[in-house]
Amino acid sequence: MLSIPDLIKKKKDGGALSDEEIKAFIESVTDKTIQDCQTGAMLMAIWQKGMTDKEIVTLTKEMMSSGEVMSWPKEWAGLVVDKHSTGGVGDKVSLVLAPALAACGYKIKNIMDSVGCCIVGQTETLVPADQVLYGMRDVTSTVNSLPLITGSIISKKGAESLSALVLDVKFGRAALYKDLDSARELAQLLVKVGNSLGMLTGAALSSMDGTIGRCVGNSLEVIECLETLKGKGPDDLMELVTTLGALLLKMTGSVSDLSEGRKKISDSVIGGAALSKFQAMMEKQGVDSEAARTLSSTDTDYYSILRKSKHQITLETPADGDVVDVDGMILAEVLHKLGAGRSKFGESVNHSVGAKLLVSLGQKAPPGWSSIMRIRLRLQTRSVDCRAL
Amino acid sequence: MLSIPDLIKKKKDGGALSDEEIKAFIESVTDKTIQDCQTGAMLMAIWQKGMTDKEIVTLTKEMMSSGEVMSWPKEWAGLVVDKHSTGGVGDKVSLVLAPALAACGYKIKNIMDSVGCCIVGQTETLVPADQVLYGMRDVTSTVNSLPLITGSIISKKGAESLSALVLDVKFGRAALYKDLDSARELAQLLVKVGNSLGMLTGAALSSMDGTIGRCVGNSLEVIECLETLKGKGPDDLMELVTTLGALLLKMTGSVSDLSEGRKKISDSVIGGAALSKFQAMMEKQGVDSEAARTLSSTDTDYYSILRKSKHQITLETPADGDVVDVDGMILAEVLHKLGAGRSKFGESVNHSVGAKLLVSLGQKAPPGWSSIMRIRLRLQTRSVDCRAL
Repeated sequence: MLSIPDLIKKKKDGGALSDEEIKAFIESVTDKTIQDCQTGAMLMAIWQKGMTDKEIVTLTKEMMSSGEVMSWPKEWAGLVVDKHSTGGVGDKVSLVLAPALAACGYKIKNIMDSVGCCIVGQTETLVPADQVLYGMRDVTSTVNSLPLITGSIISKKGAESLSALVLDVKFGRAALYKDLDSARELAQLLVKVGNSLGMLTGAALSSMDGTIGRCVGNSLEVIECLETLKGKGPDDLMELVTTLGALLLKMTGSVSDLSEGRKKISDSVIGGAALSKFQAMMEKQGVDSEAARTLSSTDTDYYSILRKSKHQITLETPADGDVVDVDGMILAEVLHKLGAGRSKFGESVNHSVGAKLLVSLGQKAPPGWSSIMRIRLRLQTRSVDCRAL
Repeated sequence: MLSIPDLIKKKKDGGALSDEEIKAFIESVTDKTIQDCQTGAMLMAIWQKGMTDKEIVTLTKEMMSSGEVMSWPKEWAGLVVDKHSTGGVGDKVSLVLAPALAACGYKIKNIMDSVGCCIVGQTETLVPADQVLYGMRDVTSTVNSLPLITGSIISKKGAESLSALVLDVKFGRAALYKDLDSARELAQLLVKVGNSLGMLTGAALSSMDGTIGRCVGNSLEVIECLETLKGKGPDDLMELVTTLGALLLKMTGSVSDLSEGRKKISDSVIGGAALSKFQAMMEKQGVDSEAARTLSSTDTDYYSILRKSKHQITLETPADGDVVDVDGMILAEVLHKLGAGRSKFGESVNHSVGAKLLVSLGQKAPPGWSSIMRIRLRLQTRSVDCRAL
């Protein structure tokens, strides 16, 4: 019988835990025989001392098998794919990429037979060890640990028994990792561990300083996705969707090179096939079919279905100027405080809170035009009075 | 309002916590608003990154004032003293030193007016923050951290509002710190922090490889103390008692140099004054006065009062030889397994379990004499069958 204090001691002294020791740790987390203070201490020891690649692979495998592992019909072999992003401001890529891949014949996560894609949150039965560790990492300031991030992300994808996984690893001001080198290190580790679990795994590195697209916040992002699926999406969003999609198509052997993959994804979006899948997905997930049809129509009034914020203000620039910077992180913080995100588990989210950028980088911003620059300046002087954007 | 994750982050990144931040941490431990996983993570971060002397002083002060702080009658000013040992095998110094100091007019810890000394364990109301942290340090492998050790020891002594404190900091195989240098580092820190709390604080460094005296285990140690108080104690025990006592006498200005202090302590032990105090202390702590008198008489049968082990064995050497080593640590481990100590909080201790060394270092050990060497050999080959010594 392995003792938890001994495991903690070994790790805090910089040792590498054996397969058996990692198994004992994860089992004790899953069956809740470990004391919370011990989990906290182990997380901090792992944060401080890191783990070898071998340890990370074992950690991920043990986390993966701490709960249910999904299985799929045989005829879906090679078709069950997924995408994961390390998180960005206005990151709505999945809402466009999933139906685009479904239109290409793939099955995306928690799949439904007839539609082929579905957007879901974490379930109760999948990777219970991660549910405990993820919650504790947040309150113990051990979130940004390569082994813990890798274990958390890949164990969940492994438990979905994916054929292939594409990762969008972000770097920059509004990303978990600020610089390209550390993002690359994470990406390489994720790819290595994913592949070691028998999933075809690839990654793209993308910068995350401002926002993805021009809309941030729940309802506004859904609208921007629908516009994109109707062929009117912002360039940066389309670039991410086609790049990540092409990578998945190439990994699974559907296309021979990335440019062929890009075209295939782009065609499914521009041509309307992805929109049809999105509409079907909405219905399968319980959206009223009339509402789903309305949202998928051209020139529709989205706010006949989606909630619009009661309060709206336009932030104006104090003087003429060029837009030289959009700080996605500050925008995210403001929206978070306004109720667009959760501070604690179980908090409700206000779907109508959001911001729409009316200017973009490099554009002239005459007085009277709104600009995110203003928000940034105000926040820095602590004089901002934000109610609803 | 300071956030606990932010405090943990600052410490894990190697920063020094401000007075306000340390106060917030200790308050959250005391009022139990901190999550256990956070306490575990903070303990590990402190273990990894250490603390500055300034941080340790603040930590100790905040721990000290987390509960009741004692106060004493004005006429005891300068007389309330205490001794603390970092822990040794057969460490019975307090049982002899306390009555010796009481005989010199001092008041020793949780003092009783009429006797002047008392041996106590930790109370419920004194330093509640330490009770939480001490328990968690054990299970999170963060015991041997200089800031945490110092905070734990000195906060409790500070809460007793002592005039002076003498520390017996041990080094060696059977001590917490194995080498002289790390023990000296701890001693210097303890002295510095103790003095910063307004307690006159001094320390002695003593080696701890074998045992103190020849008896280990509850009843046997009490008997050895009583023999010492009757002038028949082992040299090493008397040396520790007189050294530590002399240091206290000199610190508080009762004597001008250590040799005068040694003589005063020695006289109170050899002359019987300390024994009278011990007898009075026993009665005040609830020992039947007839029993206390019997235990304090010359040539008494201690086992008419104290419990004797039902099972006794004499361990014999396999061949002739000199006693070249006595391993106190292994002896302690054997006795611990036999029930002389606790593995978990609240476990009962068997007072009759113990070992008496019938040989000492350098002595010839003919076959037929018992020797602790044998225990060591047996343990190393894992063939020992220990029931009761």
